[in-house]
Amino acid sequence: MEYGVHFLEQITPTEAMFRRMDRVLAAGRTKFQNYAIFDTRFFGKVLTLDKDVQSTERDEYVYHETLVWPAMLHHPRPRSVFIIGGGEGATLREVLRDPSVKRAVMVDIDDELVAMARTHLKEWHQGAFDDPRAEVCTTDARRWLEEHDERFDVILSDLTDPVGEDNPARMLYTVEFYDLLRSRLSPGGAFAMQAGMILLTHHRAHAIVHRTVRESFRFVRSYTNMIPGFFLNFGFLLASDAQDPDGVGEALITQRIADRGIPLRHLTGPFLKSRFVLPRDLTAAIEEATMISRDESPFWMTEDGAAMQG
Amino acid sequence: MEYGVHFLEQITPTEAMFRRMDRVLAAGRTKFQNYAIFDTRFFGKVLTLDKDVQSTERDEYVYHETLVWPAMLHHPRPRSVFIIGGGEGATLREVLRDPSVKRAVMVDIDDELVAMARTHLKEWHQGAFDDPRAEVCTTDARRWLEEHDERFDVILSDLTDPVGEDNPARMLYTVEFYDLLRSRLSPGGAFAMQAGMILLTHHRAHAIVHRTVRESFRFVRSYTNMIPGFFLNFGFLLASDAQDPDGVGEALITQRIADRGIPLRHLTGPFLKSRFVLPRDLTAAIEEATMISRDESPFWMTEDGAAMQG
Amino acid sequence: MEYGVHFLEQITPTEAMFRRMDRVLAAGRTKFQNYAIFDTRFFGKVLTLDKDVQSTERDEYVYHETLVWPAMLHHPRPRSVFIIGGGEGATLREVLRDPSVKRAVMVDIDDELVAMARTHLKEWHQGAFDDPRAEVCTTDARRWLEEHDERFDVILSDLTDPVGEDNPARMLYTVEFYDLLRSRLSPGGAFAMQAGMILLTHHRAHAIVHRTVRESFRFVRSYTNMIPGFFLNFGFLLASDAQDPDGVGEALITQRIADRGIPLRHLTGPFLKSRFVLPRDLTAAIEEATMISRDESPFWMTEDGAAMQG
Amino acid sequence: MEYGVHFLEQITPTEAMFRRMDRVLAAGRTKFQNYAIFDTRFFGKVLTLDKDVQSTERDEYVYHETLVWPAMLHHPRPRSVFIIGGGEGATLREVLRDPSVKRAVMVDIDDELVAMARTHLKEWHQGAFDDPRAEVCTTDARRWLEEHDERFDVILSDLTDPVGEDNPARMLYTVEFYDLLRSRLSPGGAFAMQAGMILLTHHRAHAIVHRTVRESFRFVRSYTNMIPGFFLNFGFLLASDAQDPDGVGEALITQRIADRGIPLRHLTGPFLKSRFVLPRDLTAAIEEATMISRDESPFWMTEDGAAMQG
Repeated sequence: MEYGVHFLEQITPTEAMFRRMDRVLAAGRTKFQNYAIFDTRFFGKVLTLDKDVQSTERDEYVYHETLVWPAMLHHPRPRSVFIIGGGEGATLREVLRDPSVKRAVMVDIDDELVAMARTHLKEWHQGAFDDPRAEVCTTDARRWLEEHDERFDVILSDLTDPVGEDNPARMLYTVEFYDLLRSRLSPGGAFAMQAGMILLTHHRAHAIVHRTVRESFRFVRSYTNMIPGFFLNFGFLLASDAQDPDGVGEALITQRIADRGIPLRHLTGPFLKSRFVLPRDLTAAIEEATMISRDESPFWMTEDGAAMQG
Repeated sequence: MEYGVHFLEQITPTEAMFRRMDRVLAAGRTKFQNYAIFDTRFFGKVLTLDKDVQSTERDEYVYHETLVWPAMLHHPRPRSVFIIGGGEGATLREVLRDPSVKRAVMVDIDDELVAMARTHLKEWHQGAFDDPRAEVCTTDARRWLEEHDERFDVILSDLTDPVGEDNPARMLYTVEFYDLLRSRLSPGGAFAMQAGMILLTHHRAHAIVHRTVRESFRFVRSYTNMIPGFFLNFGFLLASDAQDPDGVGEALITQRIADRGIPLRHLTGPFLKSRFVLPRDLTAAIEEATMISRDESPFWMTEDGAAMQG
Repeated sequence: MEYGVHFLEQITPTEAMFRRMDRVLAAGRTKFQNYAIFDTRFFGKVLTLDKDVQSTERDEYVYHETLVWPAMLHHPRPRSVFIIGGGEGATLREVLRDPSVKRAVMVDIDDELVAMARTHLKEWHQGAFDDPRAEVCTTDARRWLEEHDERFDVILSDLTDPVGEDNPARMLYTVEFYDLLRSRLSPGGAFAMQAGMILLTHHRAHAIVHRTVRESFRFVRSYTNMIPGFFLNFGFLLASDAQDPDGVGEALITQRIADRGIPLRHLTGPFLKSRFVLPRDLTAAIEEATMISRDESPFWMTEDGAAMQG
Repeated sequence: MEYGVHFLEQITPTEAMFRRMDRVLAAGRTKFQNYAIFDTRFFGKVLTLDKDVQSTERDEYVYHETLVWPAMLHHPRPRSVFIIGGGEGATLREVLRDPSVKRAVMVDIDDELVAMARTHLKEWHQGAFDDPRAEVCTTDARRWLEEHDERFDVILSDLTDPVGEDNPARMLYTVEFYDLLRSRLSPGGAFAMQAGMILLTHHRAHAIVHRTVRESFRFVRSYTNMIPGFFLNFGFLLASDAQDPDGVGEALITQRIADRGIPLRHLTGPFLKSRFVLPRDLTAAIEEATMISRDESPFWMTEDGAAMQG
């Protein structure tokens, strides 16, 4: 191992990833967080926000295809998409690759992060912010949705976990918020979200979020994918009131990919569907969870990975 | 993070896992390697061999179910099994859970490691070494196979990657060795092996091993699973001359699990089958690999994860 | 840097030493603490107690000569010595090198640690435990002194810092305890102690201990030495009611070393005296300290290096 | 310990310092090296150059007073000073505090580093670069001296160790270079230099540099000081052809400090003199060294701390 700048990132209270950073490319502080962009040998540019590695140039397509396409391909023809968070612009970029899409609204609370991304994270957004179909707002996503009654075919939540008792994102993880999202979906609409890491010893957050979304939506399915740059399996949710994701078969997904000409690098129809098959121990953990996050007592994670409420 | 004893384990040349170890439970040195067993907060007992975390009490069932059952369930009725390596005894334990099995031969070169496992790793072997169906030999597996012409229904290779130019395990990764294995399979037999980590930036070893096994066996399929205690997706291979693993469907696997009463904690029929679906980028990496490991120039991995030959 | 077992040791809340450990030589748990002995490449055997590196084979002579000889050479002819702590036996070993010494009593509370040291730390004690002049008691040193009214020419305190609110060693750092020690010194006797690290940003413990000892003893002098295996300058105190250490000159010290034939590897007369000269910033820090540790509100250090009282 | 950006710095091949960095304040790359300035909790701003912590805001006065004042106070009235390296400007700042000084020439090869220091390291230079007595040149110091026959009362070398076979600083560590320096000293002149870490297991560089300087200068004395931000004792040399540093007593040093009104924060006359007293083991290491660095086979240090030649 070489010496120099490293990033030490908590995975569990006793396990951490230790990564060598090369040159600092950019660094600063927004109203909400410190950010830095480093070069690294294998993962290219790495974006860090406070104490977390947020995304890497080399593998971001794995994460973003996994977040975006299950919902987009679940829908027969998504014309409008709403994105919660996603400041790097890569979720927006993926969404705009679908030729069905006529309008994509992205709402991220951190305007300085979005401005920084425009300048320094071109590999992520690839110009998506300037696509005429895109509208980027820098405000609280919940407020935006409360103030607009526009409906969308797909809603995507690209947030980090609600870590810390005073984390404002807690209010974007409650039944009431998911009810709001549901009310902003067009008939037949689908909602997908990043939903916490899937680690045998520490996937409590995923189970709670799953159970909370299930309080609101009729059909909710967990799916997972290994995110290489996180060295973790991550959990996602696909929810809909209109159709069980299990009912949209592999052949139909494959057909939609082909029909719309989606240029996927990681997913295929079969691989996408295989992501929804869960191991026995994870299914049990989800079914055993009882905590539901509500506005009156929203759940949050401690720094040590415990789930708290209220 | 707390202070004290930690294990720093290479994942790539610039990324490492850093894990807190609690009390040392046992430590020593065999002819082949240093070993230590530590207590840890979340993963229970952890076995380290030289510079690597080898296995953890909490998640070993994930690894061992993944290694053992695809081959065992591929076969309609495996009566005899040969295990290469697997010194902790957990591969043997899993194999013996199949009531079809009448004989299981395990060959691990490190007799002192096996003796240590008997004493200190009861959670792993759970008495399997004393099962009357088991025969445990401590010698070189290749030599054993060369000296015996017994045939087996299933062969399982539970080895670590061939790291280092002088690693004796290199000769257990060549076409000639796989040909030997093939000759020791009964008609309809299947071979499965641990086959390297699957990490976007570093899965070269898996691709090479896949291509090498394909030189010998008619049907070869890669499958993967996230191993929690390794913080990595791992690759495995299932090979057979008799039947393409793809031809053994989910329903049949589920039926065989039920018929034989296999007490699985992680796998289900659907989840097992889903493990064989690969993402586009991994399929491409396998198909692009050209290195074949042969006795005259066996492949090996450098400490830095590069693949070398000769 | 190599991978494998490392010891991560707090120096400040944001700075830590990270050391590679080779083979585990011994490990266990006493009533008071976990211990382990590791081999290391440059420092030889390293003894760790819970989260701290306690001593290393290669450099222990630097620490032990520094603790022992200023007091021993301050005294014209130390016949009896009392040692508080010092379980490894190296303080005792050094004391017994002085041919003046006829009796050395060592009291360490951890009998299992002393037993372990006898077996595994021969490089430290070098048989001192078996010297007919030595008496080793495993009880609380304060209780021993309260129960015996024997007087000694030299008293040495070889304790770790009182870290933690419930640390029993807190009662060995109060004015009342130092008064007790004073009452157990023969006329002309001297007391020396290990007294915390001297680090520009974190030498508060040393200043408090200095001020506390000064409440009891007439003459108190700080001295310091770099302890290589700790990567820190450490503070010590030499106290006496009989004579100011400053009054015992370099020539006299050198003469006493020669007369008694002390086999020093690190110290010389001039170097020993030079240890008592402090830099301006450290002198100021000592003079500015106001906290005094008393039985009714003994001081202690937090894990983060802050000084607390009460 | 907290998570986030850390600096891992080699001390020995198996021991490293691990320091938490807060916000990145500046970062970039000169022709010669990468640099970054981070905030830290206890040491304030920290300057890193490639893989090394170079200096910290909180403790730089300790290092710079130690480098500068022994030579400056050895000389009865230093009017001209030549500084090799010292890009942060703090050596220059200290030198200019002596009212005797009429001219100070500083030559550092890295013009971009000096420009960066002007902007971002004001706590170090405190405006010294703009002092009318200062001349700052950004070229190779050896070339500058070869091209100018000006003589100086004091020469100070503020370089890092010659690590790496292709390190251009190797030619600033040879007998021939020291002969050049000697020829550029006024009668009565003194030369002082930073001369490697003093660590029991790893002070070979200091011994070699000491012996090499002794080939050139008549009087050469080693002195040491603990540099808090390095967590190491560092070695320095004071050399002169005119007078043995040992002959300039504590009283005279104290008098000169007072006469010139030097505002010292760390040093005092007695403490400065005490720095020249070496422990027995270090003296032995210096006397046992035999390697001499010459232009034809200049010495260098490997990354692992071994001394090489040629």
